[in-house]
Amino acid sequence: MAKTIYFINGPNLNLLGTREPEIYGSSTLKDIEDRCRAIGARLGLTVVFFQSNHEGAIIDRLHEAINTAQGVVINAAAYTHTSVAIHDALRAYKGYKIELHISNPHLRESFRHVSFVSPVVDAVVAGLGIHGYELVLDVMASELQ
Amino acid sequence: MAKTIYFINGPNLNLLGTREPEIYGSSTLKDIEDRCRAIGARLGLTVVFFQSNHEGAIIDRLHEAINTAQGVVINAAAYTHTSVAIHDALRAYKGYKIELHISNPHLRESFRHVSFVSPVVDAVVAGLGIHGYELVLDVMASELQ
Amino acid sequence: MAKTIYFINGPNLNLLGTREPEIYGSSTLKDIEDRCRAIGARLGLTVVFFQSNHEGAIIDRLHEAINTAQGVVINAAAYTHTSVAIHDALRAYKGYKIELHISNPHLRESFRHVSFVSPVVDAVVAGLGIHGYELVLDVMASELQ
Amino acid sequence: MAKTIYFINGPNLNLLGTREPEIYGSSTLKDIEDRCRAIGARLGLTVVFFQSNHEGAIIDRLHEAINTAQGVVINAAAYTHTSVAIHDALRAYKGYKIELHISNPHLRESFRHVSFVSPVVDAVVAGLGIHGYELVLDVMASELQ
Amino acid sequence: MAKTIYFINGPNLNLLGTREPEIYGSSTLKDIEDRCRAIGARLGLTVVFFQSNHEGAIIDRLHEAINTAQGVVINAAAYTHTSVAIHDALRAYKGYKIELHISNPHLRESFRHVSFVSPVVDAVVAGLGIHGYELVLDVMASELQ
Amino acid sequence: MAKTIYFINGPNLNLLGTREPEIYGSSTLKDIEDRCRAIGARLGLTVVFFQSNHEGAIIDRLHEAINTAQGVVINAAAYTHTSVAIHDALRAYKGYKIELHISNPHLRESFRHVSFVSPVVDAVVAGLGIHGYELVLDVMASELQ
Amino acid sequence: MAKTIYFINGPNLNLLGTREPEIYGSSTLKDIEDRCRAIGARLGLTVVFFQSNHEGAIIDRLHEAINTAQGVVINAAAYTHTSVAIHDALRAYKGYKIELHISNPHLRESFRHVSFVSPVVDAVVAGLGIHGYELVLDVMASELQ
Amino acid sequence: MAKTIYFINGPNLNLLGTREPEIYGSSTLKDIEDRCRAIGARLGLTVVFFQSNHEGAIIDRLHEAINTAQGVVINAAAYTHTSVAIHDALRAYKGYKIELHISNPHLRESFRHVSFVSPVVDAVVAGLGIHGYELVLDVMASELQ
Amino acid sequence: MAKTIYFINGPNLNLLGTREPEIYGSSTLKDIEDRCRAIGARLGLTVVFFQSNHEGAIIDRLHEAINTAQGVVINAAAYTHTSVAIHDALRAYKGYKIELHISNPHLRESFRHVSFVSPVVDAVVAGLGIHGYELVLDVMASELQ
Amino acid sequence: MAKTIYFINGPNLNLLGTREPEIYGSSTLKDIEDRCRAIGARLGLTVVFFQSNHEGAIIDRLHEAINTAQGVVINAAAYTHTSVAIHDALRAYKGYKIELHISNPHLRESFRHVSFVSPVVDAVVAGLGIHGYELVLDVMASELQ
Amino acid sequence: MAKTIYFINGPNLNLLGTREPEIYGSSTLKDIEDRCRAIGARLGLTVVFFQSNHEGAIIDRLHEAINTAQGVVINAAAYTHTSVAIHDALRAYKGYKIELHISNPHLRESFRHVSFVSPVVDAVVAGLGIHGYELVLDVMASELQ
Amino acid sequence: MAKTIYFINGPNLNLLGTREPEIYGSSTLKDIEDRCRAIGARLGLTVVFFQSNHEGAIIDRLHEAINTAQGVVINAAAYTHTSVAIHDALRAYKGYKIELHISNPHLRESFRHVSFVSPVVDAVVAGLGIHGYELVLDVMASELQ
Repeated sequence: MAKTIYFINGPNLNLLGTREPEIYGSSTLKDIEDRCRAIGARLGLTVVFFQSNHEGAIIDRLHEAINTAQGVVINAAAYTHTSVAIHDALRAYKGYKIELHISNPHLRESFRHVSFVSPVVDAVVAGLGIHGYELVLDVMASELQ
Repeated sequence: MAKTIYFINGPNLNLLGTREPEIYGSSTLKDIEDRCRAIGARLGLTVVFFQSNHEGAIIDRLHEAINTAQGVVINAAAYTHTSVAIHDALRAYKGYKIELHISNPHLRESFRHVSFVSPVVDAVVAGLGIHGYELVLDVMASELQ
Repeated sequence: MAKTIYFINGPNLNLLGTREPEIYGSSTLKDIEDRCRAIGARLGLTVVFFQSNHEGAIIDRLHEAINTAQGVVINAAAYTHTSVAIHDALRAYKGYKIELHISNPHLRESFRHVSFVSPVVDAVVAGLGIHGYELVLDVMASELQ
Repeated sequence: MAKTIYFINGPNLNLLGTREPEIYGSSTLKDIEDRCRAIGARLGLTVVFFQSNHEGAIIDRLHEAINTAQGVVINAAAYTHTSVAIHDALRAYKGYKIELHISNPHLRESFRHVSFVSPVVDAVVAGLGIHGYELVLDVMASELQ
Repeated sequence: MAKTIYFINGPNLNLLGTREPEIYGSSTLKDIEDRCRAIGARLGLTVVFFQSNHEGAIIDRLHEAINTAQGVVINAAAYTHTSVAIHDALRAYKGYKIELHISNPHLRESFRHVSFVSPVVDAVVAGLGIHGYELVLDVMASELQ
Repeated sequence: MAKTIYFINGPNLNLLGTREPEIYGSSTLKDIEDRCRAIGARLGLTVVFFQSNHEGAIIDRLHEAINTAQGVVINAAAYTHTSVAIHDALRAYKGYKIELHISNPHLRESFRHVSFVSPVVDAVVAGLGIHGYELVLDVMASELQ
Repeated sequence: MAKTIYFINGPNLNLLGTREPEIYGSSTLKDIEDRCRAIGARLGLTVVFFQSNHEGAIIDRLHEAINTAQGVVINAAAYTHTSVAIHDALRAYKGYKIELHISNPHLRESFRHVSFVSPVVDAVVAGLGIHGYELVLDVMASELQ
Repeated sequence: MAKTIYFINGPNLNLLGTREPEIYGSSTLKDIEDRCRAIGARLGLTVVFFQSNHEGAIIDRLHEAINTAQGVVINAAAYTHTSVAIHDALRAYKGYKIELHISNPHLRESFRHVSFVSPVVDAVVAGLGIHGYELVLDVMASELQ
Repeated sequence: MAKTIYFINGPNLNLLGTREPEIYGSSTLKDIEDRCRAIGARLGLTVVFFQSNHEGAIIDRLHEAINTAQGVVINAAAYTHTSVAIHDALRAYKGYKIELHISNPHLRESFRHVSFVSPVVDAVVAGLGIHGYELVLDVMASELQ
Repeated sequence: MAKTIYFINGPNLNLLGTREPEIYGSSTLKDIEDRCRAIGARLGLTVVFFQSNHEGAIIDRLHEAINTAQGVVINAAAYTHTSVAIHDALRAYKGYKIELHISNPHLRESFRHVSFVSPVVDAVVAGLGIHGYELVLDVMASELQ
Repeated sequence: MAKTIYFINGPNLNLLGTREPEIYGSSTLKDIEDRCRAIGARLGLTVVFFQSNHEGAIIDRLHEAINTAQGVVINAAAYTHTSVAIHDALRAYKGYKIELHISNPHLRESFRHVSFVSPVVDAVVAGLGIHGYELVLDVMASELQ
Repeated sequence: MAKTIYFINGPNLNLLGTREPEIYGSSTLKDIEDRCRAIGARLGLTVVFFQSNHEGAIIDRLHEAINTAQGVVINAAAYTHTSVAIHDALRAYKGYKIELHISNPHLRESFRHVSFVSPVVDAVVAGLGIHGYELVLDVMASELQ
């Protein structure tokens, strides 16, 4: 049976592809989702994308994932650095978890060097651009076998 | 006339009783609510339970309590340690206020040793498990006489 | 054509005028909005007011402003001191931005001395009471000419 | 057989009821002890009160409790914030332990926000005034059944 | 009778208009003074400008203002971040006080994020360029009525 | 009627005059006491000396002073820097209080630069050697008139 | 022409596969190297492995890579957290750079939460076990096209 | 021959007696100077008073004292907490030195708890009000014999 | 003539051998004392053991040692990390001094990583279990020859 | 045409040669100036010396240098560690700038390890004694060619 | 069969006996080695000495010890305070481990108060001079029986 | 007889002249060495250059210098900020020592603002580019006369 992977995207990621394309590229989150679904199909993985600017909505989805998804990829964006609540929700989720960042947070302000997500995930992937989204699908496929 | 007590529960507390029962017991938040309502009835207190993973929804409820409730019991969970906004909402609420935690936060990570709730409540009760919920009802009954 | 200015108000500001009138005066946020609309009309500015206790809703509105508003006045209240997510949303907004506070945060607790809003706005106005709302309209009018 | 509960009170609590009655009330520690003994009798608990301004004497009593008492309520007052030695003595005591404070220490100076007692007790109760003494007896009764 | 407003300008502000005009514009402090005098005249305010690179001279002037001026606008420049002595002089001055900065100090080095002026003024205005000088005159006019 | 002054001396001060006389002089605490008694007699003050190495005993004496002494001179020695309990006892004492040090603690290790005594006394005298003991008697005499 | 990728492995990684196999698995660094060479061959990449416990030797190799390798994968192990010298050597290297960790350092002691490598690489991959070695080869292949 | 004592008074002390007399009393610095001169005359000491709001002027006077005065009493006021330059000037002065404060700085803001003066004086007297000025004359008389 | 060595044992060490024997072994402090006396006899050393939970009593004994003992072994237990008073008493003691810990404090909480004893002793021995008591006798014997 | 070099000397440097000659040597600032003028003459440089204990006077001179001097050597002495205002004045000066210290500040107190001058100069020379004054003239000569 | 003990000595210890003999004595590391070998022979222990100024070489030797030595004595000297890599190598070594220092590091600069070695050894011996080398052999002999 | 000066160059300095010539110029370390040898010859100084990326090799050379060189110039590059071991080696070297940096470290990241070299050298020269190498030779020549 197909395994389900949640890609949970945090605040401001809905702007992807429409702002500063010279940095982030011109792919929108929808484009990335489409490519991930296609790749997932080949790997036997059902890919579910979610984005919200609301910390609470991200937590709601992580709770939903407990019963629905075998793996979670979380790009918590700014909430990475401030949310103990998402930390707790991730701790309650027992499937395979990967923290994903498009850019390398260590190249930015010092308040982005703290992560409440890192201590409760299995792996961290950062700085690979939107290519990272595709890469973690490979990881999920091999980890969930 | 019956006094009304709000029990406001923060993020991830909806998972109570379904995750790690060996630690948190098998009582769900609904079970606790039922028991508190029954005890409240005996004490002449109307008990209102609320849970949300959304910081904003918790603040909305605290504002509602201003006109509706004589006392507030708040288990802000992870928001205890990060939310200045809930701190401000509690400051605006003038009824009797108790901070409640199921476990003792000092037994956990250091980022849980800071509380933005403690400086704006009348009392703190922590580490009594779900029994704490019943206990603070007694306190409310005697404080609101 | 009329320029549009968003006034985005953060948590607990909906209580304005109803709590501690000796400190904050008896004007409600609705009163302020009415006066700002009137002043805006004279200055050729369309004034849009928004208040929410939800961090995510504030971010949603800042995203909406990208396409709709030429200027943003933000009184992020408690989120000023904790929200990296609002910081990121403001960074993505390229119009003229003013940070507004009714009171001077430096007269209050030390955790209010940090601002995640200040580094991503053009100007800061604090401590002028509700009069500050009217004043920043003047600034907007002259900056957006 | 009756269970025994030690109430161990730290420095300056002997002044209770004689100084600043408008804050701490007019009950002396002797009054509280009498009331607790009476309540304890009804609950089948032998209540033993002890107060000392000497850190070492508090440790001596905690050692005595190892063989004599099924539960300990400790209001270490100022030693809460400075005594690693009391921390160690509490760690050696294996019965049920509650940390008690008359007022909420978080409303006071920052050097009272650190507690060496909290990490080695089962529960914390603070800010309930002298009523807290009676309340923890209820907790003890139900925990020691 | 005309109210008197002191504009007290700190170190290096005498260079205004002669260095880095692309950032600070080409207006000199004299130009700003002339414009403020003209605006003040319309508002019924006597405007007095003062600039010094000497911390002590700024304090001397603040003492003079005690008997002479109904309001003080202070742009303490670098002394903002280091001078407890100016802090004390401002505390002794009981008229209306506004802290003014041409640029937003939060966009600069971290040692400029501390202000000894903010805790002893009524309001803070920053980042409005030399336009801020004119704006605070409006505020003074309305506050001193 | 003669006023009573307590001189409360903390840990290791019993060694005075017997160790390192080149630094502390050859006067013992007994010598100082004798001289202070004589001076006190001339000033109409009853002088009571007390020394202990026990933090608790110092607190006991401060409690005794509440009913017995009109003024307290405290040289808490090492407990100056660590004792919240003595801080609390001094806060409960409402007579005139002077903190006394034989040497200037700022010339020594950094852990001696913090004082829990300073915030709860009326005055601080340090670095005057044993001459300080006599000097504070003069202060007491004039303050207690 | 085949691109060359250096895998530079820091202190104690020579022990891989021989110590604590329940945690790190039974693959030796030689095994990983063999698998990476094979994968590299398919991807048109020449794979060069290097391990040293000497900080200086790692720097020497990074200098060699300047003229020889199109990409560098660095698992600096303990030197990640202490070596400014490796930081500088990586800064001087202008090819594509990936920081790799077998486990997630955020699950370990706090002195492993600082990385001098992260600010000078393009991407970070952590927590994927030895599988991470193979994964970064994919990334290299696509980045170096 | 008469010994000369310099009383060097720092910023804002010229306001003494004219502001907040309920706290600082109604004595001006001139009044204190007159009384000290009279006392000095009796003790065989020439008393020289100096006050300036200029850090540099205080240093100039301390240099002058090197050749002219046998003792220096310094109330550096706000410069106590910020001036390394006065620290250095005091270090260069080899006569007897007393640091004087009218109130106890430890009862005020935390930035007043640091003193650059304390490590380079022989003694510290604080919190005795203007009475402290007279007291240190006694000390000087006995120290300079 | 036989040299005398004081073994001064701090708080909670009286529990040795009766609590957690799997960690601390089943030897009581009395057992250790007996063995040390026997070894001491062979080495020509008179061994005196002392244990107290009272900081003051430990200081009293250190003062007694000044005239009585040629060497002091101090296991200050919890007071190691908090007692400036014991630090001062040890500084006053001029014989040979060894700090002893049964376990290695660096394997425990971070508040045990600070030692007020280490800077005032000649040597430190930690982590050798109760065997350390015997070992330091050897050291004493050779140092006191 | 001769280039002009300003040597700006900060607080207490006027004491050079008259205090502690065993450390600083017996050369006065006047002696150093004479030697530098002579050396400058040979190098085609006009040497201007200035010393003040007033922070503001140092800033005034730095402003003067903008139009008059091709290079500035600044020994800000104690103001090195505290003056943001001198930092700003140096930033406004665009000629070649060298920070000079007679001794090595890192051998002194930790508050001398911070420099507000270093980030706004081209070079730093410290610890060469008064010889450093002559050396930086050589540097100036070669830099200003 | 004879047990083997490695004595691993860190940077600058090769200078022992040749520099500052008044502090460190005139014994060279070779002398100490000879004495330890002799003592080891009597105790049935093969003693192997190693010294290097290279962090990597120390790690190489610790790896070698995994298969060769039953116990390790490490005097990591300066690397004690900076080397996470040696920390990791020691963690991988499972025999009995003692940290040794000739002098007591707590009597020296504060950057020597941190030890990366202490948390991964069984015991710590410091301040016994070169005598400590002989002493730990005794400990090894009794621990390895 | 000719004095010998060691120039000891730390990690990554072997890249000088080959990377970023617009910043560091096109001179290689070999070029600098040649120029220094020539200058040294004129000054009667034998110049020895050494560069290594290995911390241990730098220490080895510093030990060699004890017997061979009258002066040491050390550009420890990145090890400046992390190496206690080089600090100790420099402390053991008793000849004249100068710390040299090509650029001014205070213009770079904050982790480069700490120097373990500065407290153990006689002088510091920074920011003069490769010209600094020639300059310190002059200093050496005059210091070693």
